[in-house]
Amino acid sequence: MLCEILSVGTELLMGQIANTDAQFLARRLAVLGITMHRQTTVGDNPGRVKEALGEALSRADLVITTGGLGPTEDDLTKEMVAEYFGLPMELHADSLERIAAFFRTVGRPMTQNNRKQALMPRGARVMPNRKGTAPGCIVEQGGKIVAVLPGPPFELTDMYEQQLEPYLLARSDKVIASRFLHMVGVGESEVETRLLDLFHSDSPTLALYCNPGEITARMTVMCARGEDPAPLLDPLEREIRRRMGSAVYAEGIDASLPKEIVRRLTARGETLATAESLTGGMLASQIVDVPGASGVLTEAHVTYAVAAKARVLGVPQDILDTVGPVSEACARAMAEGARRISGAHYALATTGLAGPGGGTEETPVGTVWIALASAHGETQARRLSLKSDRARIRAMTCLHALNLLRLHLDALDTEEK
Amino acid sequence: MLCEILSVGTELLMGQIANTDAQFLARRLAVLGITMHRQTTVGDNPGRVKEALGEALSRADLVITTGGLGPTEDDLTKEMVAEYFGLPMELHADSLERIAAFFRTVGRPMTQNNRKQALMPRGARVMPNRKGTAPGCIVEQGGKIVAVLPGPPFELTDMYEQQLEPYLLARSDKVIASRFLHMVGVGESEVETRLLDLFHSDSPTLALYCNPGEITARMTVMCARGEDPAPLLDPLEREIRRRMGSAVYAEGIDASLPKEIVRRLTARGETLATAESLTGGMLASQIVDVPGASGVLTEAHVTYAVAAKARVLGVPQDILDTVGPVSEACARAMAEGARRISGAHYALATTGLAGPGGGTEETPVGTVWIALASAHGETQARRLSLKSDRARIRAMTCLHALNLLRLHLDALDTEEK
Repeated sequence: MLCEILSVGTELLMGQIANTDAQFLARRLAVLGITMHRQTTVGDNPGRVKEALGEALSRADLVITTGGLGPTEDDLTKEMVAEYFGLPMELHADSLERIAAFFRTVGRPMTQNNRKQALMPRGARVMPNRKGTAPGCIVEQGGKIVAVLPGPPFELTDMYEQQLEPYLLARSDKVIASRFLHMVGVGESEVETRLLDLFHSDSPTLALYCNPGEITARMTVMCARGEDPAPLLDPLEREIRRRMGSAVYAEGIDASLPKEIVRRLTARGETLATAESLTGGMLASQIVDVPGASGVLTEAHVTYAVAAKARVLGVPQDILDTVGPVSEACARAMAEGARRISGAHYALATTGLAGPGGGTEETPVGTVWIALASAHGETQARRLSLKSDRARIRAMTCLHALNLLRLHLDALDTEEK
Repeated sequence: MLCEILSVGTELLMGQIANTDAQFLARRLAVLGITMHRQTTVGDNPGRVKEALGEALSRADLVITTGGLGPTEDDLTKEMVAEYFGLPMELHADSLERIAAFFRTVGRPMTQNNRKQALMPRGARVMPNRKGTAPGCIVEQGGKIVAVLPGPPFELTDMYEQQLEPYLLARSDKVIASRFLHMVGVGESEVETRLLDLFHSDSPTLALYCNPGEITARMTVMCARGEDPAPLLDPLEREIRRRMGSAVYAEGIDASLPKEIVRRLTARGETLATAESLTGGMLASQIVDVPGASGVLTEAHVTYAVAAKARVLGVPQDILDTVGPVSEACARAMAEGARRISGAHYALATTGLAGPGGGTEETPVGTVWIALASAHGETQARRLSLKSDRARIRAMTCLHALNLLRLHLDALDTEEK
């Protein structure tokens, strides 16, 4: 089945928000084996919505629209779908009752314009909205399917998972089977060079996706529903793992270094604390973002001011006075201090210059020290020289710090075997 | 000038990454008064890139492509632009030298496929890439302009700001003048109801953009280059401020609550500490993400484990034993503890249940207490009941905590006047 996404929203064309809805849908549809060749974004303009819808339906079997279901006058995605198919709009009583109930729950009055959200193209399969007021719908006609979803990501995600995905699952005959291997600590061209000949295979195919500091290898085969893809994918996965060694840190579409750290520390029954300067709590927050983090992260100390490094973490004043806070000695003392006061098995520390100001010739912006204190060995420290902007220097520091711990856990696992 | 964005990348169609490039460009182009009606995303497929390029050029004067400039064989955006205009590809000597120099700087060998990145459509205006290897280019022919930018956001942003924007600035005759007012603590339909009649004006126009917990009102007029838009926008801005009162917290396209807090505390010469449980450092990290935060945030204490709340922040054990960590008393004690040990003027505390597990009938997931301890008054606390998922409950908690401080600063400013 060939699918296109049609995103409707002037806020997207103006760049007020990123189109995370399209990303979410694309990722989920790929897993279902639904092929996508194009995504289109238009504003809240009736003529252009209808035109883009017609073009998408001329190419694809399934068009999923996002947005334009709000209560305001310029929200008219449903109306354009109805017009395209020549269907009248009708009041959907269940939806009206649900909208009224929603407003009772949140304790706000229902406005007259919310009534418009209960109008549906005649014959449409209505998808109730469990997270907001705008219901979605599915219209099937002449072998084409249009699924209309709300724009707010929280509403869209729920409606897709609860209603549209089950509907689509029942219709797909082929499936794409994919595996993902996540790598960290290697550059894109290095990975590409090491895997070069593997890119020439047609089945399974190999592709690389790069985020700052991380690379994901995706292996994909198309197979019939019910066919076991493992024998098709196993040899390629083994070969990538052999060539990339310890750079591979996890598998699975949703893997991330924080999730991997939480998973492994949970399995070991061990705990982590952080001592953060330039990352300012980002490292701890990435851990806390993972469900189950409460068993792993005991505490974090963001010692952003120099004095706080001494007072909170016990970094010796002479280190701060001589080599200063952006130094190996300070990073080590921060990690050891955090481990001492928390009693955690491991403590990660970050200190450095994220800029934009404050750099010197000796310590330019992007100079970062990370350190790991461990119950199972000596404190390690590493210097990073990151050439980037403030946000990315901070994000890359978190990644390298988590990877330092990950490699330490690898070494421990090997010893313990 | 009418513009479209054509994003090229199978990783976008697969949902591996969000299309933040399109968002960045859309936002910047809007400020230049360049109108956008459509954005299209296609994969790394030569036929579909060329087809979408032709369609975009049939509608728009300017097409900006992103992505498909990498060293691999399926990167072929430039080639398709050349083919569309009937131009041969030629080696651009300066670009080849820049690419070689880039590899010398990062200390990695230049591979043969990087040479392909120095090929350019004949006659194109080359845009050197200061952040990576792939140069971009601008091709003008028959009254149409195609600007080709690299996909990695860090490279695209720099190339746009340094090269494409100055090029476009010189060509635009009209400009859109916009103002933004940012609001927090009010719902979308409430704002809409209060401002209802103002949406009917054609010039200036008023639109609302909603992020979770935040609403931005955008006022827009189209005017001639050099014309002062202030007299056209002032009356509308005054009216919105009058009706929305203290919900308005800032103006400007890039405003955010963390930036506003850093700006105002810097102006007052005052400092902030945080004590975080469910937000896990996110609150401090949002502050640290703002350049200049080092003068404002002294430290943060992420006391995620219950025992850490007592040991680090001095929360009385009987509070933890009786009403527990998710309580008004605990939030107040955390805020006061953080202020006491940091010596900061203000301390914000967060404690609550982000889920997915751990909820009870009395304290369901989404129950959050925030508190503010201040050098200028009594400690305040507020209970939140957030109905959402883990990530959003944490993000909304940060927003409400920052807003608690913002409203306190408002009150202090009023007193001091």
